Amino acid sequence: MTGSGTDRTRKAVQAPAPAIILVEPQMAENIGMCARAMANFGLSEMRLVAPRDGWTTGSGLKEAATTTASGAGHILDNATLYPTTAEAISDLHHVLATTARERGQMKRVMTPAEAMPPIAQRVGSGERVGILFGRERIGLTNEEISFADAILTFPVDPAFASLNLAQAVLLAGYEWIKATGGEPPFREHNLSPPATRATVLSMFDYVESELDICGFFPPGKKQVMTANLRDILHRLAMTEQEARTLRGVFKSLTEGPRRLRVPKPVEDE
Amino acid sequence: MTGSGTDRTRKAVQAPAPAIILVEPQMAENIGMCARAMANFGLSEMRLVAPRDGWTTGSGLKEAATTTASGAGHILDNATLYPTTAEAISDLHHVLATTARERGQMKRVMTPAEAMPPIAQRVGSGERVGILFGRERIGLTNEEISFADAILTFPVDPAFASLNLAQAVLLAGYEWIKATGGEPPFREHNLSPPATRATVLSMFDYVESELDICGFFPPGKKQVMTANLRDILHRLAMTEQEARTLRGVFKSLTEGPRRLRVPKPVEDE
Repeated sequence: MTGSGTDRTRKAVQAPAPAIILVEPQMAENIGMCARAMANFGLSEMRLVAPRDGWTTGSGLKEAATTTASGAGHILDNATLYPTTAEAISDLHHVLATTARERGQMKRVMTPAEAMPPIAQRVGSGERVGILFGRERIGLTNEEISFADAILTFPVDPAFASLNLAQAVLLAGYEWIKATGGEPPFREHNLSPPATRATVLSMFDYVESELDICGFFPPGKKQVMTANLRDILHRLAMTEQEARTLRGVFKSLTEGPRRLRVPKPVEDE
Repeated sequence: MTGSGTDRTRKAVQAPAPAIILVEPQMAENIGMCARAMANFGLSEMRLVAPRDGWTTGSGLKEAATTTASGAGHILDNATLYPTTAEAISDLHHVLATTARERGQMKRVMTPAEAMPPIAQRVGSGERVGILFGRERIGLTNEEISFADAILTFPVDPAFASLNLAQAVLLAGYEWIKATGGEPPFREHNLSPPATRATVLSMFDYVESELDICGFFPPGKKQVMTANLRDILHRLAMTEQEARTLRGVFKSLTEGPRRLRVPKPVEDE
Protein backbone atom coordinates (compact mmCIF):
# COMPACT_ATOMS: atom_id res chain seq x y z
CA MET A 1 0.00 0.00 0.00
CA THR A 2 1.67 3.19 -1.06
CA GLY A 3 0.69 6.82 -0.85
CA SER A 4 -0.52 8.38 -4.04
CA GLY A 5 2.16 10.35 -5.81
CA THR A 6 4.83 7.82 -4.91
CA ASP A 7 7.60 7.89 -7.47
CA ARG A 8 9.92 4.99 -6.82
CA THR A 9 12.38 6.13 -9.47
CA ARG A 10 13.28 9.11 -7.30
CA LYS A 11 14.10 6.89 -4.37
CA ALA A 12 16.60 4.95 -6.41
CA VAL A 13 19.01 7.87 -6.64
CA GLN A 14 19.22 8.26 -2.86
CA ALA A 15 22.01 6.62 -0.91
CA PRO A 16 20.67 3.87 1.36
CA ALA A 17 19.63 5.22 4.75
CA PRO A 18 17.24 4.25 7.54
CA ALA A 19 13.51 4.64 6.90
CA ILE A 20 11.71 7.05 9.22
CA ILE A 21 8.41 5.50 10.27
CA LEU A 22 5.80 7.82 11.79
CA VAL A 23 3.13 5.82 13.61
CA GLU A 24 -0.32 7.44 13.56
CA PRO A 25 0.97 11.01 13.38
CA GLN A 26 -1.78 13.47 14.21
CA MET A 27 -0.61 16.87 13.04
CA ALA A 28 0.16 17.71 9.43
CA GLU A 29 2.64 20.36 10.55
CA ASN A 30 4.69 17.72 12.36
CA ILE A 31 4.74 15.42 9.33
CA GLY A 32 6.00 18.32 7.22
CA MET A 33 8.65 19.32 9.73
CA CYS A 34 9.81 15.70 9.94
CA ALA A 35 10.25 15.70 6.17
CA ARG A 36 12.32 18.88 6.38
CA ALA A 37 14.47 17.44 9.19
CA MET A 38 15.00 14.27 7.15
CA ALA A 39 16.07 16.25 4.07
CA ASN A 40 18.55 18.22 6.18
CA PHE A 41 20.43 15.05 7.00
CA GLY A 42 20.19 12.88 3.92
CA LEU A 43 17.24 10.73 4.95
CA SER A 44 14.65 10.28 2.25
CA GLU A 45 12.35 7.36 3.02
CA MET A 46 9.29 8.27 5.08
CA ARG A 47 6.69 5.67 6.01
CA LEU A 48 3.36 6.67 7.49
CA VAL A 49 1.27 4.28 9.57
CA ALA A 50 -2.40 5.27 9.51
CA PRO A 51 -2.15 9.07 9.86
CA ARG A 52 -5.11 10.18 11.95
CA ASP A 53 -6.64 12.32 9.23
CA GLY A 54 -5.78 10.20 6.20
CA TRP A 55 -3.24 10.98 3.53
CA THR A 56 -4.42 11.66 0.04
CA THR A 57 -3.22 14.10 -2.56
CA GLY A 58 -5.20 17.29 -2.41
CA SER A 59 -6.29 16.68 1.16
CA GLY A 60 -5.85 19.49 3.62
CA LEU A 61 -3.50 17.32 5.64
CA LYS A 62 -1.04 16.81 2.85
CA GLU A 63 -1.21 20.46 1.80
CA ALA A 64 -0.46 21.63 5.34
CA ALA A 65 2.39 19.16 5.68
CA THR A 66 3.88 20.33 2.39
CA THR A 67 3.85 23.92 3.62
CA THR A 68 5.84 23.16 6.77
CA ALA A 69 8.17 20.86 4.82
CA SER A 70 9.77 24.01 3.36
CA GLY A 71 10.98 22.47 0.12
CA ALA A 72 11.18 18.87 1.29
CA GLY A 73 7.86 18.07 -0.37
CA HIS A 74 9.52 15.35 -2.46
CA ILE A 75 9.86 13.29 0.72
CA LEU A 76 6.12 13.64 1.35
CA ASP A 77 5.36 12.79 -2.27
CA ASN A 78 7.40 9.61 -1.93
CA ALA A 79 6.06 8.67 1.49
CA THR A 80 4.50 5.21 1.68
CA LEU A 81 1.37 4.49 3.63
CA TYR A 82 0.68 1.41 5.79
CA PRO A 83 -2.37 0.37 7.79
CA THR A 84 -0.37 -1.10 10.68
CA THR A 85 3.08 -0.81 12.21
CA ALA A 86 3.72 -4.52 11.65
CA GLU A 87 3.17 -4.05 7.91
CA ALA A 88 5.34 -0.93 7.84
CA ILE A 89 8.36 -2.85 9.13
CA SER A 90 7.82 -6.24 7.48
CA ASP A 91 10.57 -5.81 4.86
CA LEU A 92 13.14 -4.44 7.32
CA HIS A 93 16.04 -6.31 8.91
CA HIS A 94 16.65 -4.08 11.92
CA VAL A 95 14.27 -1.79 13.76
CA LEU A 96 14.68 0.83 16.50
CA ALA A 97 11.79 2.22 18.53
CA THR A 98 11.99 5.72 20.00
CA THR A 99 10.51 6.39 23.40
CA ALA A 100 11.01 9.13 25.96
CA ARG A 101 10.10 7.05 28.99
CA GLU A 102 10.88 3.67 30.34
CA ARG A 103 8.42 0.93 29.39
CA GLY A 104 9.48 -1.87 31.67
CA GLN A 105 10.69 -3.94 28.73
CA MET A 106 13.95 -5.81 28.97
CA LYS A 107 15.33 -4.19 25.87
CA ARG A 108 18.62 -2.48 25.10
CA VAL A 109 18.52 1.33 25.28
CA MET A 110 20.69 3.49 23.02
CA THR A 111 21.18 7.18 22.39
CA PRO A 112 21.35 8.37 18.76
CA ALA A 113 25.10 8.84 19.12
CA GLU A 114 25.46 5.22 20.25
CA ALA A 115 22.97 3.77 17.78
CA MET A 116 23.95 5.39 14.52
CA PRO A 117 27.52 4.12 13.97
CA PRO A 118 26.44 0.43 14.10
CA ILE A 119 23.35 1.26 12.04
CA ALA A 120 25.54 2.90 9.42
CA GLN A 121 27.50 -0.38 9.28
CA ARG A 122 24.31 -2.40 8.88
CA VAL A 123 23.00 -0.11 6.12
CA GLY A 124 26.41 -0.19 4.45
CA SER A 125 26.33 -3.99 4.34
CA GLY A 126 22.89 -3.99 2.73
CA GLU A 127 20.51 -4.33 5.68
CA ARG A 128 17.31 -2.30 5.63
CA VAL A 129 16.84 -0.38 8.84
CA GLY A 130 13.86 1.58 10.15
CA ILE A 131 13.24 3.84 13.13
CA LEU A 132 9.77 3.97 14.67
CA PHE A 133 8.46 7.28 16.03
CA GLY A 134 5.21 7.20 18.00
CA ARG A 135 2.07 9.30 18.24
CA GLU A 136 2.57 12.89 19.38
CA ARG A 137 1.13 12.51 22.87
CA ILE A 138 1.21 8.82 23.72
CA GLY A 139 4.13 7.50 21.71
CA LEU A 140 4.38 3.86 20.68
CA THR A 141 2.39 1.04 22.22
CA ASN A 142 4.25 -1.60 24.19
CA GLU A 143 3.49 -4.07 21.40
CA GLU A 144 5.07 -1.73 18.82
CA ILE A 145 8.14 -1.39 21.03
CA SER A 146 8.35 -5.19 21.22
CA PHE A 147 8.78 -5.22 17.41
CA ALA A 148 12.12 -3.43 17.75
CA ASP A 149 15.67 -4.64 18.28
CA ALA A 150 16.49 -1.78 20.62
CA ILE A 151 15.06 1.38 22.13
CA LEU A 152 16.30 4.77 20.95
CA THR A 153 16.07 7.60 23.44
CA PHE A 154 17.57 11.06 23.83
CA PRO A 155 19.76 12.74 26.44
CA VAL A 156 17.56 15.56 27.68
CA ASP A 157 17.14 17.67 30.79
CA PRO A 158 15.01 15.41 33.02
CA ALA A 159 13.10 18.52 34.13
CA PHE A 160 11.95 19.14 30.54
CA ALA A 161 12.14 15.91 28.63
CA SER A 162 9.36 16.36 26.07
CA LEU A 163 10.83 16.46 22.57
CA ASN A 164 8.67 17.46 19.64
CA LEU A 165 8.23 14.68 17.05
CA ALA A 166 10.17 16.52 14.34
CA GLN A 167 12.95 17.35 16.78
CA ALA A 168 13.35 13.68 17.66
CA VAL A 169 13.59 12.89 13.94
CA LEU A 170 16.06 15.76 13.56
CA LEU A 171 18.40 14.38 16.24
CA ALA A 172 18.28 10.90 14.73
CA GLY A 173 19.09 12.38 11.32
CA TYR A 174 21.86 14.54 12.72
CA GLU A 175 23.61 11.55 14.28
CA TRP A 176 23.04 9.57 11.09
CA ILE A 177 24.87 12.15 8.97
CA LYS A 178 27.64 12.36 11.59
CA ALA A 179 28.02 8.57 11.52
CA THR A 180 28.21 8.55 7.73
CA GLY A 181 30.91 11.18 7.36
CA GLY A 182 28.72 14.28 7.17
CA GLU A 183 30.78 17.43 6.97
CA PRO A 184 29.80 21.02 7.65
CA PRO A 185 28.93 22.93 4.46
CA PHE A 186 32.23 24.81 4.54
CA ARG A 187 35.50 24.98 6.37
CA GLU A 188 38.10 27.71 6.61
CA HIS A 189 38.94 27.71 2.88
CA ASN A 190 40.17 31.26 3.12
CA LEU A 191 42.76 30.66 5.77
CA SER A 192 46.26 31.14 4.49
CA PRO A 193 48.83 28.64 5.82
CA PRO A 194 50.19 29.09 9.34
CA ALA A 195 52.87 31.77 9.55
CA THR A 196 56.41 30.45 9.56
CA ARG A 197 58.40 31.31 12.61
CA ALA A 198 60.68 33.45 10.40
CA THR A 199 57.73 35.71 9.44
CA VAL A 200 56.62 36.03 13.05
CA LEU A 201 60.12 36.74 14.40
CA SER A 202 60.75 39.30 11.69
CA MET A 203 57.53 41.07 12.71
CA PHE A 204 58.65 40.99 16.35
CA ASP A 205 62.03 42.49 15.41
CA TYR A 206 60.32 45.28 13.50
CA VAL A 207 57.88 46.15 16.31
CA GLU A 208 60.50 45.95 19.03
CA SER A 209 62.98 48.18 17.22
CA GLU A 210 60.27 50.76 16.53
CA LEU A 211 59.13 50.65 20.17
CA ASP A 212 62.76 51.17 21.19
CA ILE A 213 62.92 54.30 18.99
CA CYS A 214 59.64 55.54 20.56
CA GLY A 215 61.05 55.11 24.08
CA PHE A 216 58.35 52.54 24.99
CA PHE A 217 60.61 50.45 27.25
CA PRO A 218 61.49 51.86 30.70
CA PRO A 219 65.15 51.35 31.66
CA GLY A 220 65.97 47.72 32.45
CA LYS A 221 62.51 46.49 31.46
CA LYS A 222 63.03 45.81 27.78
CA GLN A 223 63.80 42.10 28.13
CA VAL A 224 60.78 41.16 30.27
CA MET A 225 58.37 43.43 28.37
CA THR A 226 59.53 42.02 25.06
CA ALA A 227 58.97 38.50 26.33
CA ASN A 228 55.44 39.37 27.47
CA LEU A 229 54.62 41.02 24.17
CA ARG A 230 55.92 38.03 22.22
CA ASP A 231 53.83 35.73 24.40
CA ILE A 232 50.69 37.73 23.59
CA LEU A 233 51.39 37.69 19.87
CA HIS A 234 52.45 34.02 19.72
CA ARG A 235 49.14 33.08 21.26
CA LEU A 236 47.41 34.31 18.10
CA ALA A 237 48.75 31.29 16.21
CA MET A 238 48.73 33.58 13.18
CA THR A 239 48.48 32.61 9.56
CA GLU A 240 51.07 33.97 7.14
CA GLN A 241 48.54 36.51 5.91
CA GLU A 242 47.62 37.60 9.43
CA ALA A 243 51.28 38.13 10.35
CA ARG A 244 51.69 40.36 7.28
CA THR A 245 48.48 42.25 8.13
CA LEU A 246 49.64 42.92 11.68
CA ARG A 247 53.05 44.07 10.47
CA GLY A 248 51.26 46.50 8.17
CA VAL A 249 49.19 47.77 11.09
CA PHE A 250 52.29 48.43 13.20
CA LYS A 251 54.07 50.07 10.26
CA SER A 252 51.15 52.37 9.54
CA LEU A 253 50.95 53.43 13.19
CA THR A 254 54.70 54.07 13.20
CA GLU A 255 54.53 56.26 10.16
CA GLY A 256 51.52 58.30 11.31
CA PRO A 257 49.00 60.06 9.06
CA ARG A 258 50.03 59.81 5.42
CA ARG A 259 49.42 63.52 4.79
CA LEU A 260 51.91 64.44 7.54
CA ARG A 261 54.46 61.79 6.64
CA VAL A 262 58.03 63.03 6.16
CA PRO A 263 59.63 61.14 3.28
CA LYS A 264 62.46 58.97 4.51
CA PRO A 265 65.20 59.17 1.91
CA VAL A 266 66.96 55.85 2.68
CA GLU A 267 64.22 53.39 3.61
CA ASP A 268 62.60 51.50 0.78
CA GLU A 269 58.96 52.38 0.22
CA MET B 1 17.80 46.73 29.32
CA THR B 2 15.77 43.70 30.32
CA GLY B 3 12.50 42.29 29.15
CA SER B 4 9.54 42.81 31.41
CA GLY B 5 8.86 39.84 33.60
CA THR B 6 12.53 39.12 34.08
CA ASP B 7 13.08 37.33 37.37
CA ARG B 8 16.78 37.10 38.04
CA THR B 9 16.28 34.93 41.09
CA ARG B 10 15.08 32.12 38.86
CA LYS B 11 18.23 32.29 36.77
CA ALA B 12 20.39 31.81 39.83
CA VAL B 13 19.25 28.24 40.35
CA GLN B 14 20.31 27.20 36.83
CA ALA B 15 23.71 25.65 36.25
CA PRO B 16 25.91 27.95 34.17
CA ALA B 17 25.44 27.39 30.45
CA PRO B 18 25.87 29.37 27.23
CA ALA B 19 23.42 32.17 26.52
CA ILE B 20 21.36 31.75 23.35
CA ILE B 21 21.20 35.10 21.55
CA LEU B 22 18.53 35.50 18.86
CA VAL B 23 19.32 38.46 16.64
CA GLU B 24 16.24 40.22 15.25
CA PRO B 25 14.03 37.13 15.25
CA GLN B 26 10.95 37.68 13.12
CA MET B 27 8.51 34.95 14.02
CA ALA B 28 7.07 34.48 17.47
CA GLU B 29 6.64 30.76 16.81
CA ASN B 30 10.37 30.41 16.28
CA ILE B 31 11.20 32.23 19.50
CA GLY B 32 8.88 29.90 21.38
CA MET B 33 10.31 26.78 19.75
CA CYS B 34 13.82 27.99 20.56
CA ALA B 35 12.80 28.29 24.21
CA ARG B 36 11.44 24.75 24.16
CA ALA B 37 14.62 23.42 22.51
CA MET B 38 16.72 25.24 25.12
CA ALA B 39 14.70 23.76 27.99
CA ASN B 40 15.13 20.27 26.54
CA PHE B 41 18.88 20.53 26.95
CA GLY B 42 19.44 22.55 30.11
CA LEU B 43 19.93 25.96 28.51
CA SER B 44 18.03 28.73 30.23
CA GLU B 45 19.38 32.14 29.27
CA MET B 46 17.77 33.64 26.16
CA ARG B 47 18.76 37.08 24.89
CA LEU B 48 16.73 38.84 22.22
CA VAL B 49 18.22 41.53 20.03
CA ALA B 50 15.51 43.86 18.69
CA PRO B 51 12.76 41.35 17.81
CA ARG B 52 11.04 42.66 14.69
CA ASP B 53 7.67 43.06 16.33
CA GLY B 54 8.80 44.16 19.78
CA TRP B 55 8.62 42.14 22.96
CA THR B 56 6.31 43.30 25.70
CA THR B 57 4.17 41.34 28.11
CA GLY B 58 0.67 40.98 26.77
CA SER B 59 1.76 41.57 23.18
CA GLY B 60 0.60 39.14 20.57
CA LEU B 61 4.20 38.23 19.85
CA LYS B 62 4.96 37.07 23.35
CA GLU B 63 1.65 35.23 23.62
CA ALA B 64 2.30 33.33 20.40
CA ALA B 65 5.83 32.50 21.47
CA THR B 66 4.60 31.20 24.81
CA THR B 67 2.17 28.89 23.02
CA THR B 68 4.86 27.24 20.91
CA ALA B 69 7.23 27.11 23.90
CA SER B 70 5.08 24.23 25.24
CA GLY B 71 5.84 24.74 28.89
CA ALA B 72 9.17 26.53 28.51
CA GLY B 73 7.51 29.90 29.08
CA HIS B 74 9.84 30.58 32.03
CA ILE B 75 12.68 30.97 29.54
CA LEU B 76 10.67 33.59 27.65
CA ASP B 77 9.73 35.34 30.90
CA ASN B 78 13.40 35.56 31.83
CA ALA B 79 14.59 36.57 28.36
CA THR B 80 16.54 39.82 28.27
CA LEU B 81 16.12 42.37 25.51
CA TYR B 82 18.90 44.36 23.83
CA PRO B 83 18.78 47.04 21.13
CA THR B 84 21.95 45.84 19.35
CA THR B 85 24.03 42.69 19.04
CA ALA B 86 27.08 44.50 20.42
CA GLU B 87 25.20 45.29 23.62
CA ALA B 88 23.84 41.76 23.87
CA ILE B 89 27.35 40.29 24.03
CA SER B 90 29.19 43.01 25.94
CA ASP B 91 29.42 41.05 29.22
CA LEU B 92 30.49 37.78 27.57
CA HIS B 93 34.00 36.33 27.37
CA HIS B 94 33.58 34.02 24.41
CA VAL B 95 31.14 34.22 21.51
CA LEU B 96 30.21 31.86 18.67
CA ALA B 97 28.30 32.97 15.56
CA THR B 98 26.14 30.47 13.68
CA THR B 99 25.98 30.64 9.91
CA ALA B 100 24.95 28.17 7.24
CA ARG B 101 27.11 29.60 4.48
CA GLU B 102 30.63 30.78 4.06
CA ARG B 103 31.15 34.49 4.62
CA GLY B 104 34.67 34.94 3.34
CA GLN B 105 35.94 35.73 6.80
CA MET B 106 39.19 34.23 8.00
CA LYS B 107 37.60 32.70 11.04
CA ARG B 108 37.72 29.24 12.56
CA VAL B 109 34.74 27.04 11.71
CA MET B 110 33.44 24.44 14.16
CA THR B 111 30.58 21.96 14.28
CA PRO B 112 28.52 21.75 17.50
CA ALA B 113 30.24 18.45 18.34
CA GLU B 114 33.64 20.13 18.02
CA ALA B 115 32.66 23.38 19.73
CA MET B 116 30.81 22.20 22.82
CA PRO B 117 33.48 20.25 24.72
CA PRO B 118 35.86 23.27 24.89
CA ILE B 119 32.91 25.57 25.62
CA ALA B 120 31.89 23.32 28.50
CA GLN B 121 35.43 23.76 29.83
CA ARG B 122 35.23 27.54 29.50
CA VAL B 123 31.85 27.68 31.24
CA GLY B 124 33.12 25.33 33.93
CA SER B 125 36.01 27.67 34.66
CA GLY B 126 33.70 30.66 35.00
CA GLU B 127 33.69 32.21 31.53
CA ARG B 128 30.41 33.54 30.17
CA VAL B 129 29.74 32.21 26.69
CA GLY B 130 27.09 33.17 24.15
CA ILE B 131 25.97 31.79 20.80
CA LEU B 132 24.57 34.16 18.18
CA PHE B 133 21.75 32.99 15.91
CA GLY B 134 20.77 35.25 13.01
CA ARG B 135 17.57 36.43 11.42
CA GLU B 136 15.38 33.72 9.89
CA ARG B 137 16.10 34.47 6.23
CA ILE B 138 19.31 36.46 6.09
CA GLY B 139 21.19 35.30 9.17
CA LEU B 140 23.85 37.43 10.83
CA THR B 141 25.54 40.42 9.21
CA ASN B 142 29.24 40.19 8.46
CA GLU B 143 29.84 42.71 11.25
CA GLU B 144 27.98 40.54 13.74
CA ILE B 145 30.04 37.54 12.68
CA SER B 146 33.19 39.61 13.22
CA PHE B 147 32.18 39.94 16.89
CA ALA B 148 32.63 36.19 17.38
CA ASP B 149 35.61 34.03 18.29
CA ALA B 150 34.57 31.29 15.91
CA ILE B 151 31.85 30.26 13.48
CA LEU B 152 29.44 27.48 14.41
CA THR B 153 27.94 25.54 11.52
CA PHE B 154 26.14 22.24 11.08
CA PRO B 155 26.85 19.08 9.11
CA VAL B 156 23.89 18.92 6.73
CA ASP B 157 23.05 17.46 3.34
CA PRO B 158 24.46 20.10 0.96
CA ALA B 159 21.40 19.58 -1.24
CA PHE B 160 19.12 20.71 1.59
CA ALA B 161 21.12 22.82 4.00
CA SER B 162 18.45 25.17 5.35
CA LEU B 163 17.97 24.55 9.07
CA ASN B 164 15.07 26.17 10.87
CA LEU B 165 16.17 28.61 13.62
CA ALA B 166 14.82 26.46 16.46
CA GLN B 167 16.43 23.36 14.97
CA ALA B 168 19.83 25.06 14.93
CA VAL B 169 19.32 26.00 18.59
CA LEU B 170 18.23 22.40 19.26
CA LEU B 171 21.43 20.93 17.81
CA ALA B 172 23.61 23.35 19.77
CA GLY B 173 21.73 22.43 22.96
CA TYR B 174 21.95 18.72 22.21
CA GLU B 175 25.73 18.84 21.85
CA TRP B 176 25.91 21.03 24.96
CA ILE B 177 24.14 18.41 27.09
CA LYS B 178 26.29 15.67 25.54
CA ALA B 179 29.45 17.64 26.39
CA THR B 180 28.29 18.16 29.98
CA GLY B 181 27.52 14.54 30.77
CA GLY B 182 23.89 14.45 29.68
CA GLU B 183 22.42 11.00 30.01
CA PRO B 184 19.32 9.50 28.43
CA PRO B 185 16.30 9.58 30.76
CA PHE B 186 16.57 5.86 31.46
CA ARG B 187 18.75 2.85 30.83
CA GLU B 188 18.05 -0.86 31.01
CA HIS B 189 17.23 -0.87 34.74
CA ASN B 190 15.15 -3.98 34.33
CA LEU B 191 17.88 -6.13 32.85
CA SER B 192 18.88 -8.94 35.14
CA PRO B 193 22.61 -9.68 35.21
CA PRO B 194 24.16 -11.63 32.35
CA ALA B 195 23.54 -15.36 32.59
CA THR B 196 26.41 -17.35 34.03
CA ARG B 197 27.80 -19.97 31.73
CA ALA B 198 26.56 -22.63 34.17
CA THR B 199 22.95 -21.50 33.67
CA VAL B 200 23.35 -21.47 29.90
CA LEU B 201 25.05 -24.87 29.71
CA SER B 202 22.47 -26.42 31.99
CA MET B 203 19.76 -25.14 29.63
CA PHE B 204 21.65 -26.59 26.67
CA ASP B 205 21.91 -29.99 28.43
CA TYR B 206 18.20 -29.99 29.11
CA VAL B 207 17.20 -29.08 25.54
CA GLU B 208 19.63 -31.49 23.94
CA SER B 209 18.58 -34.45 26.07
CA GLU B 210 14.92 -33.75 25.34
CA LEU B 211 15.64 -33.44 21.61
CA ASP B 212 17.47 -36.78 21.82
CA ILE B 213 14.38 -38.37 23.36
CA CYS B 214 12.22 -36.84 20.57
CA GLY B 215 14.49 -38.30 17.87
CA PHE B 216 15.39 -34.81 16.56
CA PHE B 217 18.99 -35.72 15.61
CA PRO B 218 19.51 -37.84 12.47
CA PRO B 219 22.14 -40.58 12.93
CA GLY B 220 25.69 -39.18 13.10
CA LYS B 221 24.49 -35.56 13.05
CA LYS B 222 24.06 -34.91 16.74
CA GLN B 223 27.45 -33.35 17.34
CA VAL B 224 27.34 -30.79 14.51
CA MET B 225 23.67 -29.95 15.03
CA THR B 226 24.24 -29.43 18.73
CA ALA B 227 27.15 -27.09 18.00
CA ASN B 228 25.00 -25.06 15.61
CA LEU B 229 22.15 -24.82 18.08
CA ARG B 230 24.52 -23.73 20.84
CA ASP B 231 25.95 -21.08 18.52
CA ILE B 232 22.48 -19.66 17.85
CA LEU B 233 21.62 -19.55 21.52
CA HIS B 234 24.98 -18.17 22.66
CA ARG B 235 24.51 -15.26 20.29
CA LEU B 236 21.59 -14.08 22.39
CA ALA B 237 24.02 -13.01 25.11
CA MET B 238 21.21 -13.84 27.51
CA THR B 239 20.60 -12.44 30.95
CA GLU B 240 20.08 -14.85 33.83
CA GLN B 241 16.35 -14.15 33.67
CA GLU B 242 16.20 -14.73 29.92
CA ALA B 243 18.01 -18.07 30.22
CA ARG B 244 15.45 -19.15 32.80
CA THR B 245 12.59 -17.93 30.61
CA LEU B 246 13.88 -19.87 27.60
CA ARG B 247 14.35 -23.02 29.66
CA GLY B 248 10.74 -22.65 30.79
CA VAL B 249 9.65 -22.31 27.14
CA PHE B 250 11.46 -25.50 26.12
CA LYS B 251 10.13 -27.37 29.16
CA SER B 252 6.56 -26.30 28.46
CA LEU B 253 6.85 -27.44 24.82
CA THR B 254 8.29 -30.77 25.96
CA GLU B 255 5.48 -31.42 28.35
CA GLY B 256 2.70 -30.49 25.93
CA PRO B 257 -0.76 -29.19 26.83
CA ARG B 258 -1.27 -29.17 30.57
CA ARG B 259 -4.72 -30.78 30.28
CA LEU B 260 -3.24 -33.80 28.47
CA ARG B 261 -0.17 -34.08 30.64
CA VAL B 262 0.44 -37.51 32.14
CA PRO B 263 1.69 -37.12 35.70
CA LYS B 264 5.26 -38.32 36.07
CA PRO B 265 5.50 -40.08 39.40
CA VAL B 266 9.25 -39.64 40.03
CA GLU B 267 10.17 -36.18 38.65
CA ASP B 268 9.72 -33.24 40.96
CA GLU B 269 6.92 -30.84 40.02
